[in-house]
Amino acid sequence: MKTTGRVTIPTDESFVEGTKEIAAKWGADAVRDCDGTVLPANVAELADKVYNTYFIVRGDNEWADKHPEETHRTFLMSERTLAEGKTLEIEVMKGYFPQQIVPDWENLSYWEVIDRTTGEVVSDWKADEARGIVKIEKAEEMHEYTVDFMAKVIWHPVQIYNYLTNNWTCAKQKMYDPAFPHTAEYIKEHMRKWCDEHPETNVVRFTTFLYQFTLIFNEQGKEKYVDWFGYGLSTSPAMLEDFKKEYGYALRAEDFIDGGCYNTPFRVPNKRFKDYMEFVEKRVCRTVRSLTDIVHEKGKEAMMFLGDDWIGAEPYGEHFAETGLDAVVGSVGGGVTVRMLSEIPHVKYREGRFLPYFFPDTFFEGNEENAVAELNRNWTTARRAMMRKPLDRMGFGGYLSLAAKFPTFVDRVSEICEEFRGIVDMAGKAKPYCGLTVAILNCWGKKRSWMSHMVAHELWYQPVYSYQGILEAISGLAVNVKFVSFEDVKAGIDGDIDVIINVGDGYTAYSGGEYWNDEGVVRAIRSWVREGHGFIGVGEPTEYVKGGRTFVLADVLGVDKEIGFTMSEDKYNIEKKAHFITEDVRGEIDYGEGKKNIYALPGADVLDIEFSDRFRRNVNVGEVKLAANACGKGRGVYIAGLPYSAQNARLLYRAMFWSAGKENELKRAFVSDPATECTYYPEMKKYAVINNAAEAKKTVFYDIDGNEKELALGPGEIVWIG
Amino acid sequence: MKTTGRVTIPTDESFVEGTKEIAAKWGADAVRDCDGTVLPANVAELADKVYNTYFIVRGDNEWADKHPEETHRTFLMSERTLAEGKTLEIEVMKGYFPQQIVPDWENLSYWEVIDRTTGEVVSDWKADEARGIVKIEKAEEMHEYTVDFMAKVIWHPVQIYNYLTNNWTCAKQKMYDPAFPHTAEYIKEHMRKWCDEHPETNVVRFTTFLYQFTLIFNEQGKEKYVDWFGYGLSTSPAMLEDFKKEYGYALRAEDFIDGGCYNTPFRVPNKRFKDYMEFVEKRVCRTVRSLTDIVHEKGKEAMMFLGDDWIGAEPYGEHFAETGLDAVVGSVGGGVTVRMLSEIPHVKYREGRFLPYFFPDTFFEGNEENAVAELNRNWTTARRAMMRKPLDRMGFGGYLSLAAKFPTFVDRVSEICEEFRGIVDMAGKAKPYCGLTVAILNCWGKKRSWMSHMVAHELWYQPVYSYQGILEAISGLAVNVKFVSFEDVKAGIDGDIDVIINVGDGYTAYSGGEYWNDEGVVRAIRSWVREGHGFIGVGEPTEYVKGGRTFVLADVLGVDKEIGFTMSEDKYNIEKKAHFITEDVRGEIDYGEGKKNIYALPGADVLDIEFSDRFRRNVNVGEVKLAANACGKGRGVYIAGLPYSAQNARLLYRAMFWSAGKENELKRAFVSDPATECTYYPEMKKYAVINNAAEAKKTVFYDIDGNEKELALGPGEIVWIG
Repeated sequence: MKTTGRVTIPTDESFVEGTKEIAAKWGADAVRDCDGTVLPANVAELADKVYNTYFIVRGDNEWADKHPEETHRTFLMSERTLAEGKTLEIEVMKGYFPQQIVPDWENLSYWEVIDRTTGEVVSDWKADEARGIVKIEKAEEMHEYTVDFMAKVIWHPVQIYNYLTNNWTCAKQKMYDPAFPHTAEYIKEHMRKWCDEHPETNVVRFTTFLYQFTLIFNEQGKEKYVDWFGYGLSTSPAMLEDFKKEYGYALRAEDFIDGGCYNTPFRVPNKRFKDYMEFVEKRVCRTVRSLTDIVHEKGKEAMMFLGDDWIGAEPYGEHFAETGLDAVVGSVGGGVTVRMLSEIPHVKYREGRFLPYFFPDTFFEGNEENAVAELNRNWTTARRAMMRKPLDRMGFGGYLSLAAKFPTFVDRVSEICEEFRGIVDMAGKAKPYCGLTVAILNCWGKKRSWMSHMVAHELWYQPVYSYQGILEAISGLAVNVKFVSFEDVKAGIDGDIDVIINVGDGYTAYSGGEYWNDEGVVRAIRSWVREGHGFIGVGEPTEYVKGGRTFVLADVLGVDKEIGFTMSEDKYNIEKKAHFITEDVRGEIDYGEGKKNIYALPGADVLDIEFSDRFRRNVNVGEVKLAANACGKGRGVYIAGLPYSAQNARLLYRAMFWSAGKENELKRAFVSDPATECTYYPEMKKYAVINNAAEAKKTVFYDIDGNEKELALGPGEIVWIG
Repeated sequence: MKTTGRVTIPTDESFVEGTKEIAAKWGADAVRDCDGTVLPANVAELADKVYNTYFIVRGDNEWADKHPEETHRTFLMSERTLAEGKTLEIEVMKGYFPQQIVPDWENLSYWEVIDRTTGEVVSDWKADEARGIVKIEKAEEMHEYTVDFMAKVIWHPVQIYNYLTNNWTCAKQKMYDPAFPHTAEYIKEHMRKWCDEHPETNVVRFTTFLYQFTLIFNEQGKEKYVDWFGYGLSTSPAMLEDFKKEYGYALRAEDFIDGGCYNTPFRVPNKRFKDYMEFVEKRVCRTVRSLTDIVHEKGKEAMMFLGDDWIGAEPYGEHFAETGLDAVVGSVGGGVTVRMLSEIPHVKYREGRFLPYFFPDTFFEGNEENAVAELNRNWTTARRAMMRKPLDRMGFGGYLSLAAKFPTFVDRVSEICEEFRGIVDMAGKAKPYCGLTVAILNCWGKKRSWMSHMVAHELWYQPVYSYQGILEAISGLAVNVKFVSFEDVKAGIDGDIDVIINVGDGYTAYSGGEYWNDEGVVRAIRSWVREGHGFIGVGEPTEYVKGGRTFVLADVLGVDKEIGFTMSEDKYNIEKKAHFITEDVRGEIDYGEGKKNIYALPGADVLDIEFSDRFRRNVNVGEVKLAANACGKGRGVYIAGLPYSAQNARLLYRAMFWSAGKENELKRAFVSDPATECTYYPEMKKYAVINNAAEAKKTVFYDIDGNEKELALGPGEIVWIG
């Protein structure tokens, strides 16, 4: 029996009848507009619910023109400019896009000039607005200097991107920051008026709130800097003054510029930046609440799009509850984004926008097979995460009329929607069985749950995918997941945690950097492991070079990284051993980028090691890629890197069980073939077994008591047992 | 016409007639003894000169037994031991070889206990000699502790190695340190007596002087720690007390232990360690002089073996002249060791001991072809360096009777000896033409000329060979070479230098570490390059993470290393360009281990870049392996790594000419095929063209004025022109 509901589709005024047909096929109960489309007049007839996009800080250029002083600001660093003589002129805007930003010459008091060769702040400089330069009179020859300047944002960055990418010719949307008094009042009035003017709208789809993630363009209008987590576009004088009042100290330009690193989430965050984040979060959540109150007064729901101007509305932050939001919607790239969305607290429902977008780049004649393949890929990676914690709704974006031209695609979406509703009915009701509780330890902790190692907006990036794979694997594994910070660890590790995972490059916020120089952190983890818990390090875990060690917890991990200083010490532990962790490995293990120069300490078990093909003179020096180590009553595991794959997810699952000392618990609600996965819902006594492969698979199924039977699954099939 | 001389051969009492025959064939004019052999009674009849091995600080166990308190000492670090409770006992000798060392319980005042978790020195501890432990009463739980203990060396480390490797059963040689008063007198008396007892000896071959390089064995008698440059076996109480008197401050155990890094030459040396090195150098050179004076009195020559107990006799140090040595002999592994030996100042002649050794591991029945191949390989790599600066003598080691069984081998050595004498006659007389002067910049400068990146005794080591290749290439290229320190650079870069090369891993003494945080260094090099010179960086040159940059001279090199903090910045400079530097490259360039995460700055020319095969979403992020960059009137070049090969040597040669802005000078005294090389001796107006390949080669020869003609060379051939 076909079910309905839980599905949102895009529509527009030119595709009313088609929308009805597809809505019926997919069981869609909501329609939405899309950038550049207009909802039909009779939209309420199309579905139970109508979503309508709403912008707070852009879209009204008339207002923006009336209050140009209330536009958004950002701190930017000029190019590093070399002093070739005693005086130096720095062209402030060099490399930036004048249509996006202009220097804020009226607010020079916020600017800073820095000697990048020494790190010193230069006090003796003059700005020349007419020539667009800063002049330093007493420069040190052969030093590099930069200007940290405040800039006005005169064009909304996401609109720039869409505008230039799609050759739009509409108005260029300016911005206005509600931190300023006039705009603060204006946005509330506008909200009220808009609600009254949109009676057909059930759901106000905020896209999004007050501050866009950092997105800066270069002089050719191409992306120059993008940080989907960046707080850089929120730094207006109004915000800075309010911060000073509230926190009792002033932030400097360099607090944001950060030598050109702009406090990327890869940086270990310092106290000042953490204070500022908290300040913005409080401010944004309070302001959003003043709008959601209006939305609710008007009998509508408030939905947040997790993207665009989402800065400050950290869904896992301490202030998110205050927003009063009803729902969140976000883009689904894979299992990690599913869990990032599906676990957001304090809202009634969470929606995922699936791939592919119904845009001409995919939906052109002859490309239906690729469109279906992308759909299946997206669904398969998302599904394994949904077995653990499903989204409440799914949806698509773009032009429905384009999708309608691909009948196989339409049919496949129809099947997926049905499968999705089946999963939500089961997995949405009760917590599935978890064999373990694992904690991801980094500087961000809970606030950035499921959000580590993302560069730009989930852009694929070579130094990152080998770490992101850990989260992608975990998103679909039968474990509870917690995200903990070093402060959490020092305060006492939660009693339910079996395994702590530290994953990332040395000195980043993900591995922890200077936190590993804190004996409290070291002591807390070391003693906890030795009492009988597990610690898994991936990449350059616990790295902080000190006293002859590179990995501070080398004693736990059983490995250290050679950075040249102990090469004179012989390394004899190079014999590869068979192990519980690698039992399901077939062929080579894919470590992604891996790591070089890792060696095993005496006593550790080397599970995988690479030997250079350049060997001469029988020198046995290998590079350890995977190791297991006993540490008191506990255990440590080192992995050089682990991009997501079925085999790697299995390897990690085994590593977690082994490190927790629970090998005997592995084969409960378990399937033998790594391409298949099992989820058990104890309250319903139901098992779901999924096949993540595009081929049929035979797998041995183990129930919660370890009883086994063989199962055959079709390509991508889901089978319910019990 | 066959020439004679310049060749030393081993002999022993059982092979007198054979020695005569081979000496005639090879034109040998000197014979030597070997470890475990005895010179024949009539040895003076065999050759013009007789070398005889001499040991200063070992070989007289009777003396050693009489003065056990005067044995050598070393500081060693115990295993890192975890405090699981409030008290902690550390087993001092765990992991060490009791036949080599014993803790010096009488000198506890030199010992230190260190909390490795905090780095703090622990004052409250007690030693228990009977139990071999140090006990800490008030340990911090979950901290790791070590004991830095002074140990007596009770068996000479090189003899241990030979003894255990060859299953010897002779006496185990003890040691005695002339820093102590009795031994100081004894060694002079012994020298006099020995000279009188060895009238047949013309050359006293010191093997070697007072302090052996660091070589420590583990509990199984296997090598545990080896540093051919290490000063660790010189640290007796006598030395430490004398140091305190001379330098006005006391050194601590940890000054030598260095967190277990033991001041390896990869560590940026600090002032205290540099003071100590200078102290040892002065002491050793003065003591050696007191012996060479005796040798000379007795009408003999004094020769140093560069190895074994050579510590303190730094041949490129400031005190070496004082030794009064006549000659140095060392092992030849390739071009670098040739130049290391052939440029040693203040001696009358320098001898190289070539490969293979005449030992049973090579000279067994049926292995003649391999023996000849090893000979040819050794000769070919050494020869290109000798064209630039030849050794004065060559020789072989081992059992001549073994070599005599391989007639093809004997004939080939005969040819090589003849070729060697020809080269010395030409290249030994006058300096060859050099197109450029290049300086290798690292923390060691001149003192460790040709000695960088060696781990153990030229052991092949994965993280090093890609850097060592730079020196190996240069050893045979037509350039002047200087070795300069950061202090030299700050004091003013020599006027004749065209190109500075900085090669190594970040934070090692070879790239420079904290020196790159010295604005004086940065200013000196940057301005010098911009005035019109060249700078070549290999690996992680100028690395010091600071203010948003990883490579401090990124502006010069045109590249920087991404360590995660600027991943949000787009990198668009990824297009590979053809260039003067890569004109002779055929196929792939071999960067050895290479480096990851290097990106080009705007404006630099990318000459080689790798793209991951994992690309998705059309993300163009490449890893730059080779780049060229204009910098003022000068130029910078970045190379990810460069193990030695003919192609890489040519690439480096071109990179040097390009960076110096002297591309037009390249084709002077030049040959086109990278497997061939040309040396020009202006005073004699002679050219030598060598073929380094085992195949015949055709190459275009360019004379000093650029006139070209084609040449054909046989395998390994050397052709003299003019």
